[in-house]
Amino acid sequence: MTGLIEPRTLKGFRDYVPEVMIPREQLMETARRVYRRFGYLPIDTPALEYLEILSGKGSDETDRQMYRFEHGGKKIGMRFDLTIPLARFAAQHIGQLGTPFKRYHIAPVWRGENTQAGRYREFVQCDFDTIGTESVVADIETAVVIAELMTEIGVERFQLRMNNRQVLNGLLKKLSLEDRSVAVLRALDKLEKMGPEKVREELQSTGGLSDGQIDEVFALANIKGDTDSVLNQLSEMLKGVEQGIAGVDRLRTITEALLSYGVAAERFHIDVTIARGLDYYTGVVFETTLEELPSIGSVCSGGRYDNLAGLYTKQHLPGIGASLGLDRLIAALDQLGKLPRARSTAQIFVPYFDADRLLDYMRLCRIVRDAGWNVELYPEPKKLGVQLKYADERGFWLALVAGSDELNAGTCQVKNLTNKISTIASWRDDPQPLLAAITDSMAMISGTRLA
Amino acid sequence: MTGLIEPRTLKGFRDYVPEVMIPREQLMETARRVYRRFGYLPIDTPALEYLEILSGKGSDETDRQMYRFEHGGKKIGMRFDLTIPLARFAAQHIGQLGTPFKRYHIAPVWRGENTQAGRYREFVQCDFDTIGTESVVADIETAVVIAELMTEIGVERFQLRMNNRQVLNGLLKKLSLEDRSVAVLRALDKLEKMGPEKVREELQSTGGLSDGQIDEVFALANIKGDTDSVLNQLSEMLKGVEQGIAGVDRLRTITEALLSYGVAAERFHIDVTIARGLDYYTGVVFETTLEELPSIGSVCSGGRYDNLAGLYTKQHLPGIGASLGLDRLIAALDQLGKLPRARSTAQIFVPYFDADRLLDYMRLCRIVRDAGWNVELYPEPKKLGVQLKYADERGFWLALVAGSDELNAGTCQVKNLTNKISTIASWRDDPQPLLAAITDSMAMISGTRLA
Repeated sequence: MTGLIEPRTLKGFRDYVPEVMIPREQLMETARRVYRRFGYLPIDTPALEYLEILSGKGSDETDRQMYRFEHGGKKIGMRFDLTIPLARFAAQHIGQLGTPFKRYHIAPVWRGENTQAGRYREFVQCDFDTIGTESVVADIETAVVIAELMTEIGVERFQLRMNNRQVLNGLLKKLSLEDRSVAVLRALDKLEKMGPEKVREELQSTGGLSDGQIDEVFALANIKGDTDSVLNQLSEMLKGVEQGIAGVDRLRTITEALLSYGVAAERFHIDVTIARGLDYYTGVVFETTLEELPSIGSVCSGGRYDNLAGLYTKQHLPGIGASLGLDRLIAALDQLGKLPRARSTAQIFVPYFDADRLLDYMRLCRIVRDAGWNVELYPEPKKLGVQLKYADERGFWLALVAGSDELNAGTCQVKNLTNKISTIASWRDDPQPLLAAITDSMAMISGTRLA
Repeated sequence: MTGLIEPRTLKGFRDYVPEVMIPREQLMETARRVYRRFGYLPIDTPALEYLEILSGKGSDETDRQMYRFEHGGKKIGMRFDLTIPLARFAAQHIGQLGTPFKRYHIAPVWRGENTQAGRYREFVQCDFDTIGTESVVADIETAVVIAELMTEIGVERFQLRMNNRQVLNGLLKKLSLEDRSVAVLRALDKLEKMGPEKVREELQSTGGLSDGQIDEVFALANIKGDTDSVLNQLSEMLKGVEQGIAGVDRLRTITEALLSYGVAAERFHIDVTIARGLDYYTGVVFETTLEELPSIGSVCSGGRYDNLAGLYTKQHLPGIGASLGLDRLIAALDQLGKLPRARSTAQIFVPYFDADRLLDYMRLCRIVRDAGWNVELYPEPKKLGVQLKYADERGFWLALVAGSDELNAGTCQVKNLTNKISTIASWRDDPQPLLAAITDSMAMISGTRLA
């Protein structure tokens, strides 16, 4: 070869080296474990869909960012979320699958977005949804799953922020502003960033709201405090507005159930400013922020919708779900120094020391693997120092070191790579002494390490 | 909506409903478990690459089948295997990662191929490779991993077929036909399908081989039998040809080590007709077929290569690896009736029976989940018969049934959905009686069911 091709990834894309991919796989496994604990079922859908399935279904932004092309005369798009594929999937299969249908879907999505803000054009979403029921039980369960996800991932100080679109809709009804909901939602969304004066101007000019109406909207947005206090203020404000009161009652049922299930009161609250998209959600909505890093935004968001798949089927499919933003969460954990660093999937390292005794080393590895440990055998009979340096760099916990003397005696050294303590254990006729020595040595290793 | 969009997948693509996705996830987890047991590390790379990275790197066929498009003025291709992304990845990161580097990569690939033969255009590959060493230890380990993959997936009767490209190269050298290797390999590949006469014609016309040379090539192809016998015949045939003898010796070392590690002799053999691609592999090559379904072809293939990433870096990176064809294997297991059927990820079903006692049902669920079981709570207080029918259809193992009487008494019925035997167990003050009853009832369920 004269000219080499420069090895590089596309702008906005990235490789995952083992040090990042090991905890990433661990997080995906945690998500699957939590979803399965509640009976959610896995599905998968193609990365590519007919363009007509995808285009015009998200926002203007997702339309603009979609990767699209023609292949074999067909117009094709790459999925930019897992919700629209779920809607298409449900329209196609729900007759066979029946309802209620609870699914999870962990898969990459693609958005050709501006990469300046450290955003990536390929990222993994971990969605879970319950389709075909309007029951508050599904709302509660969604909140419980978010709380368990956070806890099991190791985020102790999360904030599950809840709202109900019915609350705002109730207020708009009270103010006879039902037709102005998009403008009001948009304004509420900007309130924190732009401040009340600018938002008031906008609500007057674009929304056509009176000062009195704006005062009431701002009063709603200003309701803060602990869960009971917020719910009571909302009940007061929405007195006589059936839809609004129903929305408040639902939030009350959910928060009571969360407490009863054992989610600590300080882990969730009602935040009336959360809207989560303008058109899609119709009931309860969720956001999840990290108390130690609120600036990264919500790492798990979702809500209730009236009709999932109306574009593809006449079957009415209400539901509720949320999406764990895996890659955003990993970035957050990394910033907080909470991402478990692991450079090895195996705990135990076996140096290939005496070149003539390969079969002995392999037998030793097998015995330890059969006992449930992950074991790496170095592939070349290099100097022991070189091999142990490799083991140190990769973060192995133990090395089983054996030269010809040990092999002849049917023993090996169990060398703890953290505290450097070694013991000798026999293994050939009976593996128990070795396995016991490994267990003892492992018990001395403190701190969180990846199994 | 007046006009509905037809919900459908692209031709050659498919959805995975839970019944298929549950065992598919299980197989991927098995693969990850086996790879980690030997210290392979996970990586991931983007689905999209610069077209120049991908095009012209596989075969003419992969070039033709590649999904390619332009986005933001860049020529982009979708990966069609995980080997070329590994080469690009290694060229970019191996300095940081060091060698030997053992990685696994489980991810979808895309090929716009003819879909008539029941082939799909999107499928998952599970690759594992050891880079940066020429040691036979890596060859042995690759074979051991294939054998453990098959065993743990539940394929008892597999055939690991091995060859070494050095054997044929040795024979070609002996016959002074080194420059004709591509023609001879191609002919050998066709031997079984087309028969010796047609292949002889082709070797004469295209390859320019003499009848004597063709006889020797055919004699090689006809070497069959148990491992020792094949190795001895090959040694005889290649006597004095250093390269060929080295190739035979390497196969001997590998097969001896496999036996020593505990892989049964009837699970592997030497098959001198295996070539696995014309240009890429340079040493040992592997194929894995199912004795009960050889027609489906190899479900796990690979081999040794001299230089992985020569197109992207000057660093010489020899290595060996193999790829488990997950979706082909699933199709095979399905045909053999060996695919575990599961329609639920949870084992235990809790009907929502008494509408007023939601918090009690949730507490019951939590107790059982905390003990490690996956538990689904039905979201609506429908008639018990409707709920139990749902549980039966989804294949739950047990139902925990409680009406107001049971809830008042702090008990529930533990109903085995397989044998219909019910017992009453208490749980509110002390969960142990319930958990013991669940364990007892589970123990009565026979057969393989998914945890």
